[in-house]
Amino acid sequence: MKTLLLVAHGSRRQESNDEVRRIASELGRLAGDEYDFVGSAFLELAEPSIPDGIQQCIDMGAGSVEVLPYFLSAGRHVRQDIPAEVAIKQQQYPDLSIIIHSYLGEAAAIPALLLQLAKTPDSNPG
Amino acid sequence: MKTLLLVAHGSRRQESNDEVRRIASELGRLAGDEYDFVGSAFLELAEPSIPDGIQQCIDMGAGSVEVLPYFLSAGRHVRQDIPAEVAIKQQQYPDLSIIIHSYLGEAAAIPALLLQLAKTPDSNPG
Repeated sequence: MKTLLLVAHGSRRQESNDEVRRIASELGRLAGDEYDFVGSAFLELAEPSIPDGIQQCIDMGAGSVEVLPYFLSAGRHVRQDIPAEVAIKQQQYPDLSIIIHSYLGEAAAIPALLLQLAKTPDSNPG
Repeated sequence: MKTLLLVAHGSRRQESNDEVRRIASELGRLAGDEYDFVGSAFLELAEPSIPDGIQQCIDMGAGSVEVLPYFLSAGRHVRQDIPAEVAIKQQQYPDLSIIIHSYLGEAAAIPALLLQLAKTPDSNPG
């Protein structure tokens, strides 16, 4: 069973956390049969934590968990904090396959997405 | 003359600021004739500031400046700080057209981009 966790920083602003959950849900819809479950987890300030999110996948019977960092730059959170949180569960479940993917900011298609956003006519800060 | 400024938070980590500059440069390349100039500016911790970035566009002869927030969520930076920085120049140059576009996190194509990232085989945290 293949699972994917979108991992974001987490915010005191609930709408921001809900936005991440909505994006994870849409990602799951788009993924179709690619993953059996797609969820979200947060480094801080929102639930579930990364270890708890991974545990949810394990409880569902996951044989693999892929972590996708929803971050724009490779600061301390991406380089140290997320790997450290993931390591907690990897040590507990040495046979579980856990991969940490590239963070969003590294996606080659980001400049094209930004150009598309700039061209969207009703584009405004909301 | 049409100009576009990719506006990021700015980081103490110079590689992160350089990454934003590289993305702006790639965005400019992709945009072709759509914009006469595409640059970057930062809310804090890196140069140019947003007012200085807008001033650079004005000095080049810009009739319009479009600001594109390189942010994933609509927190205080997107809702208050960027508009406040933009307002400084708008008051100074009332005839200049300045638009603030949607922030990156609002782009409808984000879930598809994340799925693509998860599917990239050599995807790793760098």
